[in-house]
Amino acid sequence: MSGAAVRPLTLAIDAMGGDRAPMMVIEGMNRAVDSIKNVRFLLFGRSDEVAPLVQGFRRLRTRVELRHATDVIAASERPSTALRGGRNSSMRQAIDAVAAGEADGVVSAGNTGALMAMAKFVFKTLPGVDRPAIASVFPSLRGRTVLLDLGANVNCGADNLVQFAVMGEVFARNVLGLQNPSVGLLNVGEEDLKGNDAVKKAAAILQQSKLAIRFHGFVEGDDIAMGTVDVVVTDGFSGNIALKTAEGTARLYTHYLKRALISSPLARLGALLAGPALRKMRARFDPRLYNGAMFLGLNGICVKSHGGTDAFGFCNAIRVAAELVSDGVNDGIKQDFAFLSAGPAADPKLAIG
Amino acid sequence: MSGAAVRPLTLAIDAMGGDRAPMMVIEGMNRAVDSIKNVRFLLFGRSDEVAPLVQGFRRLRTRVELRHATDVIAASERPSTALRGGRNSSMRQAIDAVAAGEADGVVSAGNTGALMAMAKFVFKTLPGVDRPAIASVFPSLRGRTVLLDLGANVNCGADNLVQFAVMGEVFARNVLGLQNPSVGLLNVGEEDLKGNDAVKKAAAILQQSKLAIRFHGFVEGDDIAMGTVDVVVTDGFSGNIALKTAEGTARLYTHYLKRALISSPLARLGALLAGPALRKMRARFDPRLYNGAMFLGLNGICVKSHGGTDAFGFCNAIRVAAELVSDGVNDGIKQDFAFLSAGPAADPKLAIG
Repeated sequence: MSGAAVRPLTLAIDAMGGDRAPMMVIEGMNRAVDSIKNVRFLLFGRSDEVAPLVQGFRRLRTRVELRHATDVIAASERPSTALRGGRNSSMRQAIDAVAAGEADGVVSAGNTGALMAMAKFVFKTLPGVDRPAIASVFPSLRGRTVLLDLGANVNCGADNLVQFAVMGEVFARNVLGLQNPSVGLLNVGEEDLKGNDAVKKAAAILQQSKLAIRFHGFVEGDDIAMGTVDVVVTDGFSGNIALKTAEGTARLYTHYLKRALISSPLARLGALLAGPALRKMRARFDPRLYNGAMFLGLNGICVKSHGGTDAFGFCNAIRVAAELVSDGVNDGIKQDFAFLSAGPAADPKLAIG
Repeated sequence: MSGAAVRPLTLAIDAMGGDRAPMMVIEGMNRAVDSIKNVRFLLFGRSDEVAPLVQGFRRLRTRVELRHATDVIAASERPSTALRGGRNSSMRQAIDAVAAGEADGVVSAGNTGALMAMAKFVFKTLPGVDRPAIASVFPSLRGRTVLLDLGANVNCGADNLVQFAVMGEVFARNVLGLQNPSVGLLNVGEEDLKGNDAVKKAAAILQQSKLAIRFHGFVEGDDIAMGTVDVVVTDGFSGNIALKTAEGTARLYTHYLKRALISSPLARLGALLAGPALRKMRARFDPRLYNGAMFLGLNGICVKSHGGTDAFGFCNAIRVAAELVSDGVNDGIKQDFAFLSAGPAADPKLAIG
């Protein structure tokens, strides 16, 4: 989107999405004002509900322009219905503001399917991208791992996976600041003969492509947490299952840890002494820290916050959108697809980035 | 297999499979002798290597009949090659002993693909089962969850998923001893419109079947650890990714917990005091406790141990095989498929079990 350089960073926010909206959204914005320099907001929602809340935050209210939107997309609404009938919704109005050049990106904690359908319809995909992907960043032994797709595309062909690999690599380079990010394809084994047709064909394409020097090969589910590669590529079905399985496992572990630490007077005393260290460790796994899934491959920045998050988590989703804008992710994706489709590289060492 | 009632429980063991075989296998058998009443073993492997090791265990050696097998299936061998050329391998000989009625089940820590290919070829599938599935049991908030398929079938149609649901339900009833096990289909959302064609069609079939009263509907990745249902059914691609992702997440969590507990003198003291409680909690997540994946749907009991496990883990895999034999899982699966295909139930409350 144009105009980012000539005015402060402007984000369009859907005030009405999320379990505890609009209050959670506005508190999140208030936190973001403290941590993101010069950020401004266009806030879309029911002005009678939202305006009094914004007034309660002195520093925030000078950075917000409130725009009235009559409708709200329900969490249960079908994407197709939202797309047809949701033109006056806060979600759609926020997306339209980005398309109109009034904002640099949009953040919503509302219905994921509706947000993706609308963002795809309004923004269209970037050149070279057939389908956008949902990407997020996870804690790993080596630091952080990017995982995509997390659920936008339940069925993926080899070409989709290859495109996700390109987008993930650009993200790791531009936003995570990695010089030579490595990319792995999620599979049920590391050997070439394992897996379904899509992953085998995608691996063959990547090995022959200019991205070959970044392509590690197949990885397995445990490699996400181990940080074996910087970017893990998979279809939206497996990616969503991996994401949710990791969340569930972490929750189960936390539950039993808490129970163990109150199981005896000695354990309670131990927990008291080790408390600060344990809290620091738990903070590392705090899902709110990783809140803000990116829709990669669209000609517009769109970030989806978890619907059940709080102000701390929503502020992180805003931060993700701000990073995507300022790090020029979409320009990077455009450049890489142009480069990849320009024929074989003379020198493979020069390929990508 | 016949003959289980007239002689002690006899298990055929592949001495040569696993990273630390044959010593790990024999130590595992020695542990099993203490915990499984009247168990006997037919042990297949290179007798010059194996015989001296068995002699070292006084109680074990009276329960073992050693059978020489010249070949060993390598961990890297293709299943098709193993099937064609592996007739004299310890793995194949152990499977053949079950088919010949000399043993009630087989346990191997060797090459999974080769074991599945050989077991399928020798045992064939049970009536009503097109493809066998790999199943295992996981810790959950509510107790234990059965997950299948873990990687036998990378591509699954709706019929395969329905058959896995039947087999998983029988397993939960017969082996876990649950009266009314609930079954969920793993998906990327709980709503009917979510998911790929196979899961949507499988859900429709299950809702119309005699298994309907046991069918919970769709579940998501976090429901595995939450224990929302007793049996989680999925294809081998997603199932393997869920399994490995859970393992990786638990390992990452353990790593950071250990690091936190040595991060300061106070944390070290706390860890010392809470030590017994923390060890008890860690033991609950010990993957060796859950070692022993079952090949369900074959006309013969076959259990795959993790290749990297130790004697404690291998002993658990032996225990799983013993339970599958004594709880009559295969008879249960046969009965259920006969019942399900016998036309609509007059009274749905009477359906299954």
